[in-house]
Amino acid sequence: MGFAGLWDSLLPAGRDPGTGGYRRYAFTDADRQCREWFSDHAFERSMRLQADRDSNLWAWWDRPGGGAAVVTGSHLDSVPDGGAFDGPLGVVSGFAAVDLLRSRGFEPVRPIAVTAFTEEEGGRFGLACLGSRLLTGATDPAAARELRDGDGVTLAEAMTSAGFDPSAIGPDEELLGRVAAYVELHIEQGSALDGLGAAVGVAAGIWPHGRWRFDFTGRADHAGTTRLPDRRDPMLPYAATVLAAREAAAAHGALATFGKVTAEPGAANAISSAVHAWLDARAADEGVLRVLVGHVEAAAAEAAAVHGVEVAVRRESFTPAVSFDPALRARLAAALTASGISAPALPTGAGHDAGILAARLPTAMLFVRNPSGVSHSPAEHADQADCEAGVVALAAVLEELAGR
Amino acid sequence: MGFAGLWDSLLPAGRDPGTGGYRRYAFTDADRQCREWFSDHAFERSMRLQADRDSNLWAWWDRPGGGAAVVTGSHLDSVPDGGAFDGPLGVVSGFAAVDLLRSRGFEPVRPIAVTAFTEEEGGRFGLACLGSRLLTGATDPAAARELRDGDGVTLAEAMTSAGFDPSAIGPDEELLGRVAAYVELHIEQGSALDGLGAAVGVAAGIWPHGRWRFDFTGRADHAGTTRLPDRRDPMLPYAATVLAAREAAAAHGALATFGKVTAEPGAANAISSAVHAWLDARAADEGVLRVLVGHVEAAAAEAAAVHGVEVAVRRESFTPAVSFDPALRARLAAALTASGISAPALPTGAGHDAGILAARLPTAMLFVRNPSGVSHSPAEHADQADCEAGVVALAAVLEELAGR
Repeated sequence: MGFAGLWDSLLPAGRDPGTGGYRRYAFTDADRQCREWFSDHAFERSMRLQADRDSNLWAWWDRPGGGAAVVTGSHLDSVPDGGAFDGPLGVVSGFAAVDLLRSRGFEPVRPIAVTAFTEEEGGRFGLACLGSRLLTGATDPAAARELRDGDGVTLAEAMTSAGFDPSAIGPDEELLGRVAAYVELHIEQGSALDGLGAAVGVAAGIWPHGRWRFDFTGRADHAGTTRLPDRRDPMLPYAATVLAAREAAAAHGALATFGKVTAEPGAANAISSAVHAWLDARAADEGVLRVLVGHVEAAAAEAAAVHGVEVAVRRESFTPAVSFDPALRARLAAALTASGISAPALPTGAGHDAGILAARLPTAMLFVRNPSGVSHSPAEHADQADCEAGVVALAAVLEELAGR
Repeated sequence: MGFAGLWDSLLPAGRDPGTGGYRRYAFTDADRQCREWFSDHAFERSMRLQADRDSNLWAWWDRPGGGAAVVTGSHLDSVPDGGAFDGPLGVVSGFAAVDLLRSRGFEPVRPIAVTAFTEEEGGRFGLACLGSRLLTGATDPAAARELRDGDGVTLAEAMTSAGFDPSAIGPDEELLGRVAAYVELHIEQGSALDGLGAAVGVAAGIWPHGRWRFDFTGRADHAGTTRLPDRRDPMLPYAATVLAAREAAAAHGALATFGKVTAEPGAANAISSAVHAWLDARAADEGVLRVLVGHVEAAAAEAAAVHGVEVAVRRESFTPAVSFDPALRARLAAALTASGISAPALPTGAGHDAGILAARLPTAMLFVRNPSGVSHSPAEHADQADCEAGVVALAAVLEELAGR
């Protein structure tokens, strides 16, 4: 099957008719549809389907006795109202690359697998790269089971209701031991390739990044009767913290974002009792990131004290700087050059399962041009010709890595 | 029945076991329980139950040929995690005052009614005093039917599912014509009475106040890959507006609060596409209020322009300054003095159904001491002795107004 047919077959799942964005959250009905799509396409290709203990999906082109496998893939879940490409492009391209290799009569020496990792975005349970973190032991399974979604449902409850066994989650050394390399293809989440006039790029590394939860606790009061000096309004230090984070990021050449905030009780005529907000912060190195987050925390504490508000800050996730395996990158570059593909190297501020797996395996990433430069939005876009160039590049890489 | 028994019989409805606060939103199951409680207590007292076309409840102590009625009451709905007293105290005290009057053998000349107005807090559909606004024609019924709750359910749908007819809503001149005066008893939403050492007070007037919706529209982008200068992040002008509102309120001796905010898509790793926020603003007179809101709008527009964000501001509700009927207040004062009750006069920043009805009827309000000074919070409190003093005061007022 060509890229376009594969691509179109996944488009309806989890699309919000109002926004045109995707709401593919782990263990929901949209997620079930995505998993069925994966399973159907594995079956059509006679690839052996495996759901690992952490509910990540694997479609195996087996080669008994062929040694450790070359694995490609990405994720099928989305942020709220995310675009169609972030994640799915890598999974679709994996299947399409298998089709392309087979159409050429290629016979791999090593096994090849296509994967779809669970909850990469953290869109439901708040912990990005959940599936790959569990698989590699980067997250404690007992703590993960107690993660809750916005409705208070635990990961354990959600997995159970979707037919997975939450008591089984955790690292799988045997499975990791069967993987020689992981190559993730992903839409670029910026417009660097567009500026360079290239359809495909190779990741140089991932900025260190993390997510910090800020809980501002004040006191609920009537908005119409409580004098300003008597208030303990947590919205005020939250607002000061948002502005301080932007200022600190600009001063350090880094990135800081508050994209999620909830106010309790959340009534227009009540002073909030609490404001919960999440800081996403990223920088070129861990030292700068530490200084940046320290500045934001200090600004929050200072503004909270002025308003009689308590503030607690908790790091919810952290991914150190990732430098992808130099030897693997060199083989990718050679294979792409041999196929006549120009693929410049790009750093990125975005986290990926490949970044998590890099702690345990040689990993690499391919990026596909995104002329919109936009991501985590329905406006995210890659042209079909560039997606097809991505499949050709991925096939060249798989041929190189699995061919001997 | 004494005050305590009546009070306790209502406490379980809509109480959140986690917060201890109330979530009594119009046309929900908690609302149904409150309405059943009202209906049961009307029935026990042989008071005729009426649900008017706007779903407000009335319990009538009829006096055929007795002329226009004296009405007392308040509301049973709550803000999210509101306290037990705001609203229910007035309804419970109404029934308790009827009991007290009957125990004394009082026979009114005029009819007396106890009322419970629908959606006073605007906790579900965002428009405070919805029931009294519809009844008096202060809100367009067609527009009201299209009001939506946080899940997108319209008022019309919610009314229908609760067994009310949304096509019937609107002003009821015949019902209003049968009311001579409305007296609302309410817990004080501040601590002025506590400072004065008085259990009961009389409202002097209500500050003009309103609710303005601010919609900041930017562009969703990936928090990890979008350079700061490329961002159109609506959270930043929102934060600047929160701080500007506080500053302007302080400068004008007024009140301004952002207690409700939602970010879209609301993902920790995505720059928001939009931030929606609600300003509650109140001031001693309408000129000051206009200047205050103008300052906040200007600050929002300025900060939005800096960040490439659009901002739209819409007034969702507005209540002009209310001076309660001077003749009615004088009769209240005389009746309370004659009963040996000292009830100082208090202004208030809070809106009430009595404020809406004041445009059409002589209205007045009694306040009961709240030593916590807190409102719209589970910490809101009135001592039982003060609640009983409130019932005695309300009975004295009803006796004066309905006795001739």
